[in-house]
Amino acid sequence: MLRGSRSGGCRPKDTDQEFFMADALKIGIAGLGTVGASLVRIIQSRANELAVTCGRPVKIVAVTARDRMRDRGIDLTGIEWYGGPVDLAQKADIDVFVELIGGSEGAANAAVRAALARGLHVVTANKALLAYHGVELAQIAEEKGVLLNFEAAVAGGIPVIKALRESLTGNTISRIYGIMNGTCNYILTRMEKEGLSFADCLKEAQRLGYAEADPAFDIEGNDTAHKLAILTTLAFGNRIAADDIYLEGITNVSIEDIRAAADLGYRIKLLGVAQRTESGIEQRVHPTMVPLDSVIAQVDGVTNAVAIESDILGELLMVGPGAGGNATASSVLGDIADIAKSRPGEQRVPVFGHPAKALEPYRKAQMQSHEGGYFIRLTVLDRTGVFASVATRMAENHISLESIVQRSKQHLSPSDHQTIILVTHATTEDSVRKAVASIRNEGYLVGEPQVIRIERPKE
Amino acid sequence: MLRGSRSGGCRPKDTDQEFFMADALKIGIAGLGTVGASLVRIIQSRANELAVTCGRPVKIVAVTARDRMRDRGIDLTGIEWYGGPVDLAQKADIDVFVELIGGSEGAANAAVRAALARGLHVVTANKALLAYHGVELAQIAEEKGVLLNFEAAVAGGIPVIKALRESLTGNTISRIYGIMNGTCNYILTRMEKEGLSFADCLKEAQRLGYAEADPAFDIEGNDTAHKLAILTTLAFGNRIAADDIYLEGITNVSIEDIRAAADLGYRIKLLGVAQRTESGIEQRVHPTMVPLDSVIAQVDGVTNAVAIESDILGELLMVGPGAGGNATASSVLGDIADIAKSRPGEQRVPVFGHPAKALEPYRKAQMQSHEGGYFIRLTVLDRTGVFASVATRMAENHISLESIVQRSKQHLSPSDHQTIILVTHATTEDSVRKAVASIRNEGYLVGEPQVIRIERPKE
Repeated sequence: MLRGSRSGGCRPKDTDQEFFMADALKIGIAGLGTVGASLVRIIQSRANELAVTCGRPVKIVAVTARDRMRDRGIDLTGIEWYGGPVDLAQKADIDVFVELIGGSEGAANAAVRAALARGLHVVTANKALLAYHGVELAQIAEEKGVLLNFEAAVAGGIPVIKALRESLTGNTISRIYGIMNGTCNYILTRMEKEGLSFADCLKEAQRLGYAEADPAFDIEGNDTAHKLAILTTLAFGNRIAADDIYLEGITNVSIEDIRAAADLGYRIKLLGVAQRTESGIEQRVHPTMVPLDSVIAQVDGVTNAVAIESDILGELLMVGPGAGGNATASSVLGDIADIAKSRPGEQRVPVFGHPAKALEPYRKAQMQSHEGGYFIRLTVLDRTGVFASVATRMAENHISLESIVQRSKQHLSPSDHQTIILVTHATTEDSVRKAVASIRNEGYLVGEPQVIRIERPKE
Repeated sequence: MLRGSRSGGCRPKDTDQEFFMADALKIGIAGLGTVGASLVRIIQSRANELAVTCGRPVKIVAVTARDRMRDRGIDLTGIEWYGGPVDLAQKADIDVFVELIGGSEGAANAAVRAALARGLHVVTANKALLAYHGVELAQIAEEKGVLLNFEAAVAGGIPVIKALRESLTGNTISRIYGIMNGTCNYILTRMEKEGLSFADCLKEAQRLGYAEADPAFDIEGNDTAHKLAILTTLAFGNRIAADDIYLEGITNVSIEDIRAAADLGYRIKLLGVAQRTESGIEQRVHPTMVPLDSVIAQVDGVTNAVAIESDILGELLMVGPGAGGNATASSVLGDIADIAKSRPGEQRVPVFGHPAKALEPYRKAQMQSHEGGYFIRLTVLDRTGVFASVATRMAENHISLESIVQRSKQHLSPSDHQTIILVTHATTEDSVRKAVASIRNEGYLVGEPQVIRIERPKE
């Protein structure tokens, strides 16, 4: 045993002196953007603590980035610079390849494959890469007996990957949902608190750097979908299905919806939800009404939150920073530390909780069969009988109502229009779509009806 | 490498067939109460999943409990029964000793020592044992190169130990605080929601099994203190100091305090707080006012929550079940899984994050030097000048006030009494105590003044 443990470094009982005698874990970093630069700064400034905690020094020996000349405020002396990610992955004398480039294809993809093929551990923050090539990469990693860690890829600093992969071992998960895009949550929070329009809040988010110049990827829900696809696989053991997700962004959420939600005791959040149902696994990203008094409803601004419902543990909710150089670097560092504490070739934690080869095909539940409560906001002509007609169309589709409110001549609508707001009890997506379609045929509808799904935490 | 990994079981790439060929991880359980029985049920009913996820089967081979005859609704056929915990720890042919007995001394303590001395991994849910003997036990575990896991000892199903020990590697933690006692949180929640007295809520909690027949240990804050002491060591790397914690229970929290708190935008929770200050580490357990719109304020009933503030990650909050047979068993199982995935003699994760020998002496910050906001409720005689006098005593002690409210002839006080409620800006415990003492000397005070500290999440 002694020999066994010495060979790969020393055991915690050893003194600091001995710690530093242990082989250093050699790191190569591809990508020196905000996260990469933070990571370099942290590893360099906390070398001693890291050595003591990890049982061996953690040393950055190789880096690469697009522009070698750019001043990133970090000291790269003594660190070998490589011409490109693949070059670094193939040639550098390292134990761990850290990929902080981003993008599902191109350099990131090629470099990670090269690193794994070489039998290097890989740490990545790249959600797109995992969403589209995760299973394949996991299989290579497991064949090579190396670790492929990606805590930073989902919900930034929140250790949700570790919770799903390790803490919840043995649990059967029924639902996982969360706020996984800071841009959207910031916009929705501002809209509610300041009574501003979506467009104004988006502009402000862009000004503050919370939203990209081209915000589509965030506000249309794609970013959330990538993260959800990864969590779904960890939670349910299916092969990743990033393109089989029902997607609805927040661009159509109006200040009226937010106000009406508040009146009814709800708050609107963009949620990613994955759920086990009888007909398969539901994956959906859409604006969602959550009860005002639920914990997740209080998660404001750029903060993220992920809730996991399982049969043994019950409900676990984690709230934390979803982005930012430091928070993300912290997760990357945690992943590196796990590798430092393990030994090469002894990886026993399947990348996605279940061995990649044992992952099941994704059994998609059709959105039509989704069951839940619905918020429906209709603008209609101010005519006698309209209210009754709406109620009838609902009844015809076996939709029972929790509340139905008619608002005449309000700020909500011009004087010849009325707003009718309905909240349904649990029903199906199919029934709601049919009811709305038949209402549309009545001819008294003004503009598009607004339909927002309601999600409740487990009682 | 191949040989290396085969020798201790197979790698995730192997098929299920091969998984079952790997050596089983042999478990011995001491204590078959609610948690123990749940654990047996779970491990037996999920044998296959566990084998696949852990890379080897997990098998219960030995158990012991007080009463062998008692029907626990679990099947113990094929499992060897031992006369006592120490006997099992010393003689059973096992890899992991699971201690679910409880208590800091006696059988639990002796058995865990015996198991570690024998070089067995230990998993325990015993907060008292760790609070009083944790460092010593950690040292033995680290010398033997075995794991001592205790996720279930703090906040039941919430994976806060793993987050501190692994995910936050490299972070410098500034403060950790949380709701760690379900009984107290249940009582405070009921008091606020139903307007019931402390006594009535306690009775109900006892009727529902949320509170012990002798509730002192919970409601006086001792249970929270034990858990806090463990978290403090994980967060700050000091030796455990369970008896150096400022302690104030919830028995004196009145419905008036809860109402006044709500009026001022706060909610009262029993928090355990550990904080790094210039004069040392503060450890305190007391009723605390948290802002109504903070996430932790929404944590109701028996649910627990732990917040960690660190310099790299930022703030991480975890919410989940703090007790219960299944939730606790889930954490125990996660600990067992971590052992199954590791290899004997290669433990590299220091039990408390830092090697036991490297833990620093506890540098206690005196409570007098605590800085923060305060809520002060005074019942005074209805005399002219009293209000001015109170304000003056505050000013004399350099306490600036966020608000001061005088309530005459209300339900809060008989007609010849007044209630004065003050909320201070950040000040020191010392100043507040001096101010209250000098007010006491004025002679217009009726009964005891109520002082409740305010805790705010990091902005």
